[in-house]
Amino acid sequence: MDLHVVDQFAKATIIEAGKRIRDAFSYDIQVETKADANDLVTNIDRETELFFIDKIKAFNPEHKILGEEGMGEQIESLEGPVWIIDPIDGTMNFIKQHRHFMITIGFFVDGVGKLGYIFDVMNEDMFCAIEGEGAWYNDSPLRKLQPLPLEEAIIGINASWVSPNRRVNHEKMIELVRTVRGTRSYGSAAMEIAFVASGKLDAYISMRLSPWDIGGGTIIAQEVGAIATNLKGQPCNLLTQDTFIIANPSIHQQILEHYIEEK
Amino acid sequence: MDLHVVDQFAKATIIEAGKRIRDAFSYDIQVETKADANDLVTNIDRETELFFIDKIKAFNPEHKILGEEGMGEQIESLEGPVWIIDPIDGTMNFIKQHRHFMITIGFFVDGVGKLGYIFDVMNEDMFCAIEGEGAWYNDSPLRKLQPLPLEEAIIGINASWVSPNRRVNHEKMIELVRTVRGTRSYGSAAMEIAFVASGKLDAYISMRLSPWDIGGGTIIAQEVGAIATNLKGQPCNLLTQDTFIIANPSIHQQILEHYIEEK
Repeated sequence: MDLHVVDQFAKATIIEAGKRIRDAFSYDIQVETKADANDLVTNIDRETELFFIDKIKAFNPEHKILGEEGMGEQIESLEGPVWIIDPIDGTMNFIKQHRHFMITIGFFVDGVGKLGYIFDVMNEDMFCAIEGEGAWYNDSPLRKLQPLPLEEAIIGINASWVSPNRRVNHEKMIELVRTVRGTRSYGSAAMEIAFVASGKLDAYISMRLSPWDIGGGTIIAQEVGAIATNLKGQPCNLLTQDTFIIANPSIHQQILEHYIEEK
Repeated sequence: MDLHVVDQFAKATIIEAGKRIRDAFSYDIQVETKADANDLVTNIDRETELFFIDKIKAFNPEHKILGEEGMGEQIESLEGPVWIIDPIDGTMNFIKQHRHFMITIGFFVDGVGKLGYIFDVMNEDMFCAIEGEGAWYNDSPLRKLQPLPLEEAIIGINASWVSPNRRVNHEKMIELVRTVRGTRSYGSAAMEIAFVASGKLDAYISMRLSPWDIGGGTIIAQEVGAIATNLKGQPCNLLTQDTFIIANPSIHQQILEHYIEEK
């Protein structure tokens, strides 16, 4: 398989999907509620996933597809070529802000990340990577992340994980918030992962993410030296929901050791 | 005084200042440390404030100027025409992200807000208002904010205010975080105020802001019906640091009454 051919196909398809989404803003957005009120899904979300599925099936009908909206296959393993797709990451931002939402896609072969994409639809900003060849922000290569002390780090973390919760000792998270230089929260995991990969944030932590939130981002991460694991420090499992941290390599272990205490 | 003439002057000057800042990114940014490590200031920050002071003095030497970098006058009252200027709100974003920082300016006459501006320098997005005439996002008028239940609100609040602190009962803040639909934190007060004024956020709360952080924003707020006060519900004092909340009018009082308990 020539990865560059797949890469060109993926980029062109993402850019076309982005244009369709921007065009769709001129129409009314019909919103429906999933199980959780925090987890809205729109017609555009579903249509975009179907658009990707059609394009991929036409590109190569043997490629498997795992998508957030569940319109791809039920996938039990990452054997063979697998696309992991989130057509709109940051659905609340999409609905309410009309910005700060991402298309994010990872392409894996036998479980190994080959191509990763995070596309800021409204800004038309593309973060992408090819395994072993590097990562880019639009036409500029992304630099390897430079070490920094934790005290100078800006980390992405939502306020809800700093208050009592079922997943981690929040007292330790409070210590972390007090130790670092600042915190941010953007409401899109893919956006925060792209920001870590490009040095705009130094870490991003979440207690519950799905494979499609992180699939594309983990591939970009490895090309710049960012470390992405679950909160036990284990490799990300791309078949199930899990905790997640991506960080500058100089602070990843320090955060896990001193500030994360899972329940 | 013809406010439209002042408005045209202000807009042109802000746009020119923005261009100077974007151009300056091609040079090295020299960073120095203020008292607080969280509060970095750059040469560009100072130069931009001086640029505004020169322009305003040439426009009308009798106008007073209150600026973050302290290069304007020491101002004891808001009598007469007063400009309140933050040349770069979101300094950490400026340094680290090269985005998400704002020029924000308020023009007051005898303490009454007349003209307000929040300019997203990298996106070249202008939020502005003229007292009694309305507010705009670039060329589009901003709508009056529509009521919504607190449970559907997205609020801007930094994780540090949800952990034990000297200013408010953090247990109440935790309840607030659990009640609303979601939280965000962007690292620029002006950006979060602009987002509330344009319905992208429904409230923004901070325990410590300065007049230049909020001067321009409060004028935009009043034109869309957003309510901006300190956490006691009193009008914002533009001569000193204070607590701050700006919110959709349907949830402002509810947040203050049920979730804010100052120490």
